[in-house]
Parts: sequence; structure tokens; C-alpha cells
Amino acid sequence: MNSYFVIYGVVIISILAIIYFAKFIFNQDKGTKNMQEISNAISEGAMAFLKRQYRTIAMLSVLLLVVIVLANYLGNSSKGSSSALSIALRTGVAFIVGALCSALSGYIGMYMAVNSNIRAAAGAKKGLNKALQIALKGGAVTGLAVTTLSLFGVATLFLLYGGMSSDINIIKEAPSLIVGFGFGASFVALFAQLGGGIYTKAADVGADLVGKVEAGIPEDDPRNPAVIADLVGDNVGDCAGRGADLFESTAAENIGAMILGVALYPVFGIKGILFPLVARALGIITSIIGIFLVKVKDDNDDPMKSLEVGYVITSVLNLILLIFVVKFMLSGLNGNVNYWLLYGCAVTGIILSIIFVVVTNYYTSINKRPVKEISEACETGAGTNIIKGISVGMESTALPVVFISLAIFIAYKLGSAALPGVANAGLYGTAIATMGMLSSCAYILAMDTFGPITDNAGGITEMSGAPEEIRTITDRLDACGNTTKALTKGYAVGSAALATFLLFSAYLDEVKKILGKPLSSWFAIDIGKPEVFIAAFIGAMIVFLFSSTAIRAVGNAAQYVILEVRRQFKEIPGIMEGKAKPDYAKCVDIVTKGALKEMILPGIIVVITPIVIGILLGKEAAGGFLLVTTIAGVVMALFLNNGGGAWDNAKKLIELGAHGGKNSEAHKAAVVGDTVGDPFKDTAGPSLHVLIKLVSTLTLVFISLFR
Amino acid sequence: MNSYFVIYGVVIISILAIIYFAKFIFNQDKGTKNMQEISNAISEGAMAFLKRQYRTIAMLSVLLLVVIVLANYLGNSSKGSSSALSIALRTGVAFIVGALCSALSGYIGMYMAVNSNIRAAAGAKKGLNKALQIALKGGAVTGLAVTTLSLFGVATLFLLYGGMSSDINIIKEAPSLIVGFGFGASFVALFAQLGGGIYTKAADVGADLVGKVEAGIPEDDPRNPAVIADLVGDNVGDCAGRGADLFESTAAENIGAMILGVALYPVFGIKGILFPLVARALGIITSIIGIFLVKVKDDNDDPMKSLEVGYVITSVLNLILLIFVVKFMLSGLNGNVNYWLLYGCAVTGIILSIIFVVVTNYYTSINKRPVKEISEACETGAGTNIIKGISVGMESTALPVVFISLAIFIAYKLGSAALPGVANAGLYGTAIATMGMLSSCAYILAMDTFGPITDNAGGITEMSGAPEEIRTITDRLDACGNTTKALTKGYAVGSAALATFLLFSAYLDEVKKILGKPLSSWFAIDIGKPEVFIAAFIGAMIVFLFSSTAIRAVGNAAQYVILEVRRQFKEIPGIMEGKAKPDYAKCVDIVTKGALKEMILPGIIVVITPIVIGILLGKEAAGGFLLVTTIAGVVMALFLNNGGGAWDNAKKLIELGAHGGKNSEAHKAAVVGDTVGDPFKDTAGPSLHVLIKLVSTLTLVFISLFR
Repeated sequence: MNSYFVIYGVVIISILAIIYFAKFIFNQDKGTKNMQEISNAISEGAMAFLKRQYRTIAMLSVLLLVVIVLANYLGNSSKGSSSALSIALRTGVAFIVGALCSALSGYIGMYMAVNSNIRAAAGAKKGLNKALQIALKGGAVTGLAVTTLSLFGVATLFLLYGGMSSDINIIKEAPSLIVGFGFGASFVALFAQLGGGIYTKAADVGADLVGKVEAGIPEDDPRNPAVIADLVGDNVGDCAGRGADLFESTAAENIGAMILGVALYPVFGIKGILFPLVARALGIITSIIGIFLVKVKDDNDDPMKSLEVGYVITSVLNLILLIFVVKFMLSGLNGNVNYWLLYGCAVTGIILSIIFVVVTNYYTSINKRPVKEISEACETGAGTNIIKGISVGMESTALPVVFISLAIFIAYKLGSAALPGVANAGLYGTAIATMGMLSSCAYILAMDTFGPITDNAGGITEMSGAPEEIRTITDRLDACGNTTKALTKGYAVGSAALATFLLFSAYLDEVKKILGKPLSSWFAIDIGKPEVFIAAFIGAMIVFLFSSTAIRAVGNAAQYVILEVRRQFKEIPGIMEGKAKPDYAKCVDIVTKGALKEMILPGIIVVITPIVIGILLGKEAAGGFLLVTTIAGVVMALFLNNGGGAWDNAKKLIELGAHGGKNSEAHKAAVVGDTVGDPFKDTAGPSLHVLIKLVSTLTLVFISLFR
Repeated sequence: MNSYFVIYGVVIISILAIIYFAKFIFNQDKGTKNMQEISNAISEGAMAFLKRQYRTIAMLSVLLLVVIVLANYLGNSSKGSSSALSIALRTGVAFIVGALCSALSGYIGMYMAVNSNIRAAAGAKKGLNKALQIALKGGAVTGLAVTTLSLFGVATLFLLYGGMSSDINIIKEAPSLIVGFGFGASFVALFAQLGGGIYTKAADVGADLVGKVEAGIPEDDPRNPAVIADLVGDNVGDCAGRGADLFESTAAENIGAMILGVALYPVFGIKGILFPLVARALGIITSIIGIFLVKVKDDNDDPMKSLEVGYVITSVLNLILLIFVVKFMLSGLNGNVNYWLLYGCAVTGIILSIIFVVVTNYYTSINKRPVKEISEACETGAGTNIIKGISVGMESTALPVVFISLAIFIAYKLGSAALPGVANAGLYGTAIATMGMLSSCAYILAMDTFGPITDNAGGITEMSGAPEEIRTITDRLDACGNTTKALTKGYAVGSAALATFLLFSAYLDEVKKILGKPLSSWFAIDIGKPEVFIAAFIGAMIVFLFSSTAIRAVGNAAQYVILEVRRQFKEIPGIMEGKAKPDYAKCVDIVTKGALKEMILPGIIVVITPIVIGILLGKEAAGGFLLVTTIAGVVMALFLNNGGGAWDNAKKLIELGAHGGKNSEAHKAAVVGDTVGDPFKDTAGPSLHVLIKLVSTLTLVFISLFR
């Protein structure tokens, strides 16, 4: 079948590109011995963390696997015991494969990051372009690996579970069976993002509070025992965490779109189910092209501009290629569907992704009103800084929600117009929009991983005492990396937000199937019923409770670091004079243990609550819970991400000389805002992205248990 | 009819009690000339603010009146032009009466507060009990006036609009017509709470930042030009604002319960519609008794204990009296209803109100885990203090939501069990629970107004340089007042939360009527429809946007104060030496103008959005918006109130000597938390209480316009 050739062809092309980029990285110079020592310490710490984190997640996953298999066996027992066993086992296998792939994505992201950072630092000696190429291509390996793995996993499971079957009913069942894959991915991503997010900020806050504030030594100073842990944190949070996050995003949204595609089988045949896979496959190709085209002419060129050019090229290529994909896949079995209207849905998704990047940029960028306002508020102290930052963060939820609403509405109407009288047509329109938005995912992820690589390159340059001109280059790349990190967070929350309606509707379709209703019928989740109302209420609250525990976890884990750094300063003589080396490994070890311990509670809360609500209050209530948790989660994530990003850059603005510059009273106030913003934007916010999709894949997997 | 005798009898008793308490206040000593001068300045400033605020609100109200009359005329035009005109005019009249009564409530609250504070300060010379009696009875006048006015207004409008008619259809229409009363009350309350909340915190923050931080003079120091404005603020925010807030709470919830009562007309007759009025009437009597019983034995007695005793007595009396009310009103026309089950609903409401007070107390009280944790976090600086406070505030949403959910569920099930097979029975159960919760409203409001009276008494004592032992008494009362303010905020948000389901259901009943469906039928608000989903999404966002603008308004208005205080310090020679008097009136004037200007934007946002959504997306979408705005509003209000209260008391705990005590580094960090918490708990949080009910009365009033 043509579609599979495209999909697996792209997988092969992507693997070749990954090998090419990886070879490019590993052929680069690794710099001085001093730099390598630092880099090795980071690498060891990061890998040690990942190893232990994966062990914890593996134990939780096995526990959950048993529950999933049992739940699906018991929940489907009415279908006869062998059929129930088959459903249970296949869902279980999908879960484990999803979990493994997600973990592998995180591992690859981390492995490439710790190997690229030192080379980017060394490459800076040869100029800005060299360093940029290394950092971006390091990121590209992650971006391509994550998206390709997700494409390969979903496509292959679909095939194995009957995607090529001649029996239409088997084909129609397949997407529901691979929901387990999405859930496995979400489950691992939740803990990866939580654990990594807690680690990175606990190390950061701990290192800063004792190092900068108490001992008065600068950031990234080798005398600070927590400095390596801090650098490790950038990798485990931003690379491993975000890799797993976007892996599960693409998987969950892809599967959700396929489930909706089942309802349109009479119109599109199998092509309607495969469209999401093909659309994403072509997005991988355009991202590779975009990545190849990024370069700066000389050291004075703006690296951010060149990254933007790559993004624009990728988006434009997607706009063009999607015409053909939509025409080929979605003209209908009789060729009578107005596919241009459906193409309009894809365009809506691409435009929405650009709008999200622009709005995020507005709220977090140094030369725009919000950040300027916050830095001004620093002049009257930390209190007014925090007040203004919270106000800006809350305000920043407005435009994105308005645009998401518009996009959902437009895509829904276009879908309905293209397929008049067809059930689920509008919903499928929003699914197409989501795929449009996801088409640039590989490029975005490459830009995102670029951030921690340049951040670490800067750290290594600083710690190894490299000359001024090299540090200027890594500093410029680092600043550029901060921007890309903020923008990709906007993209991540935007795609999650657009997908909420899609995933919610996929849940409704599953409910209909279980109730034995035709997919073309309507199943209403009526919020006038007390169970649904209560579930919705609890859904809003869970978002606050989850954020609370995630934020608190950072504080708790940072306490362990603070105590350890203080102990080393006291017990190891000569640290402050640079005569004795601090025990970096001990700090890394302590943050690792602390982060892993603290990630359990918030993780458990979001896994248990929907199951309990479904069992006690029923399917309709679980739908209400799902709806409110996802929309409140999106709004809260926007608040936390943008508020945190704005505080970060308000501090940067002051450090660049505004309102008295570094070490002024305004700067001290700005540091407080930055400290508060850290767990917002790097722990709670990104974990909420995962939560949004986890709740929907989770309710889908456990739906047979619900009353 | 018996019910009306009870209602108007209670109104007369309450008026007598008000006169008695007011006489008691005005017969008290007014203290020294110095004290009177300060008190007069506060009184003048407060009245000047109220006058100007009411002028602004009046203009907005007249504008809205025109819109309401037009909208209801056009929306009901299908019923024939004279019928439409009658509905439009009666809704308009109800709106204006509601607005006037709400304004009057605020005025009375403020008038009594500014007259009680000086007498409480003077009374402190005669001992703790005297001061306590004056402050509480001053508060009692407000509490009784507000609740009685609301009772009288709703009852009388109901009578005038056909409550005694012999035509059943006219009786059934009446509750819907008086929704305008609730909307008028909510509308005024929103601006009263916003304007007052912005005023009080702008003055507070402004006075502190320039006075305490820049000039280094203590709080309530007469050399600070903003000190009178600060004291005025306590009155306009806590008295006028809260008075209007609870007026509209009782009115809106009462009317919502009456609308639901209409559906049960076949079972209870008119008694089901009048029950909410009678239940509240008896609550006024029990509150009067409770207030009379509050006293302390000597100066060493704990005033908080005695206030709690009064609250417990009021609650126990309500528990007893409600047995008779429920038996008399809700035994059914055939006397075959198991009224004990319905009494169980009322008990659920009373227990919920106690639980809310206990949980709020846990999260904001000095000797419990949350506040202790926050004050500990102050040791590592302002950043960790803010992080911990936000985490605690978010966590504090969990228990209340769980208990509200339980209460709604229990009341619904009891209601359904008492009236098997009767439509809306479960809903009516939640209405009974809400009335149970509201039965202690007058007492709670007396305790609440007690807060700002004692706060002002403390300020007057401080400024007039009264001797140490008197200041000790007013300080103790002030601390006690801070606790009552926090607890009553918990009660206010709790009753709003319990009422959300009731008000939401009242909206559904109105939709059914307009669609010509029988009330016993079911109208589903289906969140699977894109319009509803989008409206829900925007509903969650509006809560964040509203909070943002409210918090930002405080910062903006504070800026005006800061500039003015700085100007006076610079331009009036001799202020700092105490030789020249600052220009207090100028500061009062500037905060007034600033607060009134800044209250417009957040107010407009919440009034316009639901109307636009209803017109563009239709009735069902407006229902989705209503649902999510109310539940997200409750959760956000809990977060803001409890977080703010906890920061406030964490600072107090340190000032009492913990973690280094006053002027330590920990104390400085704690001050930052307190500054951030101020607009949370005194501006945005309480305004959200109003918003929750405003959105539902507003959608009810404009429903005929919705698609």
C-alpha cells in the first residue's frame, strides 16, 4: 500500500539523516583536556541520573502494566474470555512498547546533548557558524530520532494489530488497541519531565542560593560543589524531559486522530486512518531540509535569524507538500470530497503554530512591553516584581486561548463543510489541523535541544577559563538558546491545546463503541448532572494541586542541595581558595535521589484521580473531568511558562544595563522573580503539557473499567 | 399567608435589633480630640470615596439598564409587544432596586464602621470587653442590615411581581423576573469589591513602599502622607466591598433557589418557592442571639474564643430551628414527603460551612503546618518564600473542592431520595443545603466587619499616641480581626462554591422555559460540541485574565500613591521632623481617582464576555462558559485568598519572634510575601466571589438575547 511505502521510506531517510548528523558531531574536535574533564563529569552525572530514573519508572511501569492487563481483561469480560485476554494483552504490549520508545527517545536526546555540548564549546574557537552547526545538528539528531521513533512505533503497531487486514472490523479496532502505546509514552514522559524538571531546578536554585547569595561566587564557578549538578540538570530537564514530552505528544495526538479517522472509514477508507502518519512523515523530510539550510555568514550574523529562516522554510515546505498529501489521501473513495477545504484545516494548524510562537515571543522577549514592565517593577522591589510578573503571566493566557478557540472553530466548520452530513467530519477537521501543527515538530524539537546544548557549552567554556572571544560566541548562542527554549515551550503547549478537543472527542468515540452505539450517533457529556459537575470541579482543582506538588518538590529537593553545599564549604578546607576540589559527584547523587523521591507524589495524583473518578462516578463524569483538566491545564501551563519566561528575561534585561544593571537593587529584585519563575517554567509548566495528554490516553486505556 | 408573616416579622425584629445596636454604638464615648480628628479624616475620606465610586457605578448602571430593558424587550418580542415590554420593564426595575439596595448595604457598612472604630478605640480604655462589644455590635449593624435588606428586597419584589397571585402561572414567572434584582446587586458588588479592593491595597502598598521601605518610618506613622488613605482603605475594601458582596451572594442564591422551587410547585406549592426566604429569615434571628451572647470575662480572656462561641450557638440554633422550618414548609401538599431527608440537606450545608471555616483556619493560621512552612522558607530569602506560598495556596484548593463535591453529591442524593421520581428534586436538595449554609450569614458578616473596625481602632490608637496598655488591647482585637477576616473569606467563597451548581441549574431551567420545554424534561449542555468546548475554554481563561487585570490595577494605582508621597516628602519641609502636617486629603483623593479608573477594565471584561459568547455561540455555549468560569473562579479564589492569608500570617509569625524576628533577613523576605499576597487576598480573590455569581445572574438576565 502506497501510504506504508511513504511512511517507512521516510523512516529510512530519517535514519540516514540521523546517522549523517551524528557522524558530523562525533568527527568534531573535543577541545582541551580541561574541557573534557568537565564534560565527562556532566556526562557521567546525566547518565547516572537517567539510569536511576529509568529504574524507578520501570518499576512503576511494571506495576501499572499488571493493572492495565487486569483492568482490560475484567472490563472486556463480556466479550468472552479469549477475546478479553487478547485485548488486554495487546493493550499491555502497546503500553510497554510506548514506554520503552519514550525512554529511548529521552536517552538519545540526552546522549547527543552531552556529546554535542563539549564539541560546540570547542567549535566556538573556529567561529560562530561552526558552533551553531554543531549545536543545531546535535539537536537535530534528537528531534529526528524522537519524531521518527514515534512515527515508526505507531505505524508498526497499527500494522501488527491489523492495519493491513482484509477484515474492516479488525482495521477499525486497531487504533483503539494502540492507545496503550500513547499511554505508555505519556506515563514515562510525565515522570521524565517531572523528575528532570525537579532535578534541573533544584540544582539550579540550590547552587545559586548557597553559591551566589551566601558565598558570593559567580554562576558556573568551579568552586561551587553544585555546579556540575546544575549543568547536568540542563540536560536531564530540557533534553531527556522535553524529548519524552514531544514523543508522547506526537504519539497521543496521532493515535487520537486515527481513532477519529475510523468514523470516517465510509468516506476515506483506510486513508483517513493513515493520513496522520503520512502527514507527519512528510514533516520529517521538510524539517531535515530546514535544518540543512541553517547557517550564519560570519561571526556578526544573528544566529536567531538563521534559525528563524530554517523554521520558515520548513513551514512553507509543509504548506506546499500538504496540498499533495491532502489531495492524495483525503479526496474520498469516490473522489468527490472538496479536499481544498480539508487543506484549509491543515493551513489553520500551521498558522496557529506560528501565532503561538509569535505570542510567546511577545510575552517573553526582552524588547517587548511585558518584560519591560516587569523589569521596571523591579525598581520598587521584589514584591512589585512578583505582582507584575504574575499579572503578566495570567494575562498571557488570553490571546493563545482566543486563537486556539478560533482555530478549533474554523477547522471544525471547514471539516463539516467539506463533508456535509457526515458524522465526525468537523472533528476530523480539527484532527487535520493538529497534524498541520505537528508537521514542523522535528524542526522545533531540534531548536529546543539546541538550547541546553549551547547552555552547557557556555558552562564548559566558563568553567575551563576559555578566552574572552570564545565566551562571547557561546554567550550569544546561549542567549539564542534561551529564546528557542521559550518558543518551543509555546509550541508544545499550543499543540497540546489544539489536541485537547481532538483527544476529548476520541474519548467520546470510545464511549460510543463500548455502549454499542454507532459512531455517527451523539453521546452527550451533560454537565448538568451532578456527577459530571463534581468531576469537572475536581478536574479544575487537580491542575492546581498538581502544580502545587510539582513546585513544592523543587523546593524540597533544593533543600537537600543547599545542606550538602554548605556541608562541603565547611568540611572541605581550601575550596574557596580554589586549592581543593569540591565533591561534585556527591551533589549530583543527592539531587538525583531527591528529584526521584519528589517526582512520585505529583505523578501518582494525576494517574490515580481519573481512574477513581471513572470507577466511582462513571464514564460521563470521567469525560467532564477530562475536559476541565485539559483546558484548565492548558491555561495554567500558559500562565506558568510565560510568567517564568518573562521573569527570566526581565532579569536579563537588567543585567544588560537597564534600571541600574547588575548588582543594583533592581537586579536583586529581579533575581527573586527569576527564582520563582524557574519551577514555574521548567518543572510545573512542562509537566502540565504531559498531564493534558496523559489524562486522555489514561481514560481511554481504563475506559472499560468505568461505570 | 404564614410565610410572609414570618418573613416580615423577622424584618421588623431585625430593624429593632439594628436600632438597638446602633444606639448602643452612638451612646459610646468618642475619645480625645486628637483621636476624633484622625477619625474624622478617615470618615471624610471614606465617604468621599464612596460618593465618587457610587457616581461612577451609577453611570455604568444606567447604561446597563438601557441595555437590559432593550435586550429583554427585543428578546421576548415573540411573546407580543405588551408582554415583552412588561417583562423588560419589570426586569429593569428589579435591576435598579437590586443595585440601589446593594449600594445602600455598602453605605451602611461603611457608615457604621467609621463611627464604630473611634468608639472602639476609646472603649479600649475601659477594657477588652467594652472594645469588643463596640466593634462587634458595629459589625452587627452591618451584618443585620445587609441580610435584612436582601431578605426584604427579594420578598417584596416577589410579592409585587405576583407572589400572592391566584394565577399559578404568574407565581411561577415571578422568580425569573426578580433575577434582575440579583444581577443589579452583583453588578454593584463587583465594582464595589473591585474599587474598594484596589483602593485598600494601593494605599497600603503605596504607604508601605515609600513610608516603611524608603523613608524608614513605622506603619501608621502620622508623618506618612498616605496613612489616612491606608486607614480609609480598610473601610472601603473590607466593609463597603464585603457588604455588597454578601448582599449579592444572599440575593443571588436566594433567587436561584426560588427558580428551582418553581419546578417543585406540584409537590410543595408556593411553600417550595418561599422556603429559602423563611430559612434565611430565621437565620437572622439566630444570628442576633449569637451576637448578644458574645462577651469576654476579663482582659486576659481570648476574644477569638468568645466569637467562636457565638458562631457555634448560632449554628446550633439554626440546626434546631431548621427542623421546624423544613417540616412546616417542605412536608409536601399531601404531607407525604420524608422531610427528614430534606433536613439532611440543610444539615449538610451547615456542616460544610463549618468545614470551610476549619480548613481556611488550617491554611492561614499561625500555629499550623502551612504558615510555619512558609515562614521557614523565608530564611532562604524572598524567592523561596514566594515559591512556598504559591505552592501552599494551590494546595489549599484541594480539601475545599473535595468537600464541596461531597456536599453537592450528598444533598443531591438526599433530595432525590426524599422525592423519588420528581424532576429537579436533587437540585432542590442542593438549594436547601445552600440555604442551610447561608443561615449563619448575618453573624459571619458581623464578625467580618468586626475586622476593619478593630484594624482602624488600632490605627487610631497608634496615631494618637495612646498609652501602651490600650494599644495592647486594640492590638489583640486587631489580631483577632485578622483571623475573622480570613475565616469569613473562607465562608464567602464556600457559599459561592456551593451555590455554583444551584445557579448553573437555575440557568438550565430558564433555558428550558424559553425553549418551551417542560421543567421536568432534561436540557443537556453537551461539552462535545465545539461551541460549548470553546466557550468552556474561554471561561477558564477569563478567570486568569480577570485576576490579572485586578492584580495589575493595584500595582498601577499604587504607583500614583508612591509618586504623591514622594512629592510631599520632597516639597513640604518639616514633615519628617513632625513639624509640618502632610496633606492627607490629597493622597486620599489620588487613591480614589486611581482606584476608580482602574476598576473599569476588569469589570467590563466579565460583563461583556458572557454576553458576547451567548450572542455568538448560543445558549448551550453560554452554559458551558458559566460552568467553567464558576468552578475555575472558585478554585482560583481559594488559591488567592488562602495564599495571601498564609503569607500575611507567616510575616506575623516572624514578627512574633520566629526565625530571627522583626528586621531580620527572614522578616524582609516575609514582607515581600505579604506585599504579593495583599492584592491576592483583598482585591482579586474577593472580586472573584462576586464574579462567580455575577456571571450566572447576568446570563439569566440576558438569556433571551442568546442564540
